[in-house]
Amino acid sequence: MNIISTIGYLAAFATTVSFLPQALKTIQTKDTSGISLAMYALFTAGTFLWMMYGFLIGSLQVAVANVVTFVFASIILVYKIKYK
Amino acid sequence: MNIISTIGYLAAFATTVSFLPQALKTIQTKDTSGISLAMYALFTAGTFLWMMYGFLIGSLQVAVANVVTFVFASIILVYKIKYK
Repeated sequence: MNIISTIGYLAAFATTVSFLPQALKTIQTKDTSGISLAMYALFTAGTFLWMMYGFLIGSLQVAVANVVTFVFASIILVYKIKYK
Repeated sequence: MNIISTIGYLAAFATTVSFLPQALKTIQTKDTSGISLAMYALFTAGTFLWMMYGFLIGSLQVAVANVVTFVFASIILVYKIKYK
């Protein structure tokens, strides 16, 4: 694994894992007043497109990262709609 | 521009633009109680790494999207630290 690939995996790890504490916080507190509905609607759709793009260009970093981020973002979006 | 490239640009547009309504909402309301500090600390670092990765693999979609997302995420992170 070369340096470029390692940077890709670190990037994928950081941005993917970052949505876990947000999802957990949102599930536990149901405090979504400061969270933007427009952001999560657009972001969830965007991660779905990134997922497709990653698979199509053959970048496992882009694809796998966005599968996981899509799941976390969807949870936050559902809570935002339910507890706005 | 082929279909794969178009999906990449749409993905980049959606996830990048998504942080704008969140940044604006956070700036206007200063309501950061529901926002996770761990998320934005990790996410901001992650977008910086994606930016490097995008330039290194020659994907303008990955690179440019993450330059803009890095700026928006940094603003939200600063507000979260200042108004927690």
